[in-house]
Amino acid sequence: MTERGLSFGDGLFETMLLRDGVAVSVDRHLLRLEIGCLRLGIKPPNIPLLRGEIDLLTRDHRNGIIKLIVTRGAGGRGYRPAADMTPTRLMMLFPPLNAVDGKPIEVRWCATRLARNAQLCGIKHLNRIEQVLAQNEWDDERIAEGLMLDTEGELICATAANVFLVADGVLVTPDLRFSGIRGVMRERVIESALRAGLAVEERAVWPDDLTEATEVFVTSAIRGIRSVVALQERRWSVGHITQMLIAAA
Amino acid sequence: MTERGLSFGDGLFETMLLRDGVAVSVDRHLLRLEIGCLRLGIKPPNIPLLRGEIDLLTRDHRNGIIKLIVTRGAGGRGYRPAADMTPTRLMMLFPPLNAVDGKPIEVRWCATRLARNAQLCGIKHLNRIEQVLAQNEWDDERIAEGLMLDTEGELICATAANVFLVADGVLVTPDLRFSGIRGVMRERVIESALRAGLAVEERAVWPDDLTEATEVFVTSAIRGIRSVVALQERRWSVGHITQMLIAAA
Repeated sequence: MTERGLSFGDGLFETMLLRDGVAVSVDRHLLRLEIGCLRLGIKPPNIPLLRGEIDLLTRDHRNGIIKLIVTRGAGGRGYRPAADMTPTRLMMLFPPLNAVDGKPIEVRWCATRLARNAQLCGIKHLNRIEQVLAQNEWDDERIAEGLMLDTEGELICATAANVFLVADGVLVTPDLRFSGIRGVMRERVIESALRAGLAVEERAVWPDDLTEATEVFVTSAIRGIRSVVALQERRWSVGHITQMLIAAA
Repeated sequence: MTERGLSFGDGLFETMLLRDGVAVSVDRHLLRLEIGCLRLGIKPPNIPLLRGEIDLLTRDHRNGIIKLIVTRGAGGRGYRPAADMTPTRLMMLFPPLNAVDGKPIEVRWCATRLARNAQLCGIKHLNRIEQVLAQNEWDDERIAEGLMLDTEGELICATAANVFLVADGVLVTPDLRFSGIRGVMRERVIESALRAGLAVEERAVWPDDLTEATEVFVTSAIRGIRSVVALQERRWSVGHITQMLIAAA
């Protein structure tokens, strides 16, 4: 009850894919976790120690989803942390998802908006009521994801994925200067596109940019790159750039 | 680890004063909790059951602080809640604070801003990283509270209290249409002022309104009404309206 992860969402998390015995992009995930700790003023965990714990956790498994939570710890006086808190580390291995990779998906708009706060954006902290409310908006299994706008109407992300679009041959993704999470797969896709010689723009994106785009896809560390082929009345086919990025992932 | 209060801050809390064996304003606290549950789509707890549990918890005590957490429960798939979740209830009694009632305080400005999201404002949900970061900004014990602006620069509240000011004889408090918590003591003070025949305005408040005010005070269920007598270079004396409201509380 004095655990600050529970009391205030005062911590961070990571969700990683275990594939064929390998924790995919584990270095990137742990780097984001470390950056998140620094941003929140939480003592960052010892990274080699965490890697050792992940090895132990996954030793007898080939595939699954690794979830990691780091909080500021237990105690403090109300909102105020104590001077020298010992962070809490939690780690859990979940069974793998049914194979979904590469399958095109249908998405919807969410009514739930994302608040803007430059101080908290980018990192994967534990204050996630907005995402919970957004996913709770629909239960039609044909809809794989919901797109979220911020309170000013900018397109930010899907509920559990980043979003990309192709416009005039340029790969575009929201710049996340006020909200959203800097996804590990988002980063990998940007690097992969740049390596392939594509122009990439991180900028403010509005709903009209999306509907006018020639290709749309969403990315997540757990579900990979998924081509978006339907949003309400709008239809897309799986585009060349999306296919190329899926093949390169 | 699948407890959604910990994973996503997917729940609500209340902090109540136990004074002379009585849980002060318990009905108002439980009503706010119920409203919060409805706003987040969490099954509201049975209120008579909660009251019975509070009685049990406090049976052998005269004074203290009652903390109550209600979350959506354990489970679900990622952010998405399961269809019929059983909420988690947690309750704890903390020792009373040293007497602070009525003592004038010095406050500061916080650099940490509050995000705007009309969907989440007013209720006492568990996504409180902003308040944690704000209280973590100072450790000078002479400063009792920090005032918080939202991302647009409106004055919203103190880190763990609501804020009131007196301007031209009118009692003014931020209207909390985009952020902040509707405090139980805030509500009691408004009612008490109206009963005393005062004009009360809930409206957008800006830092200049505060520095130009003739009286300023902050309110919380735990610490009561505290007159603000210093903010950086600005000094106030304890005003008549503040004194009247403290006497009426």
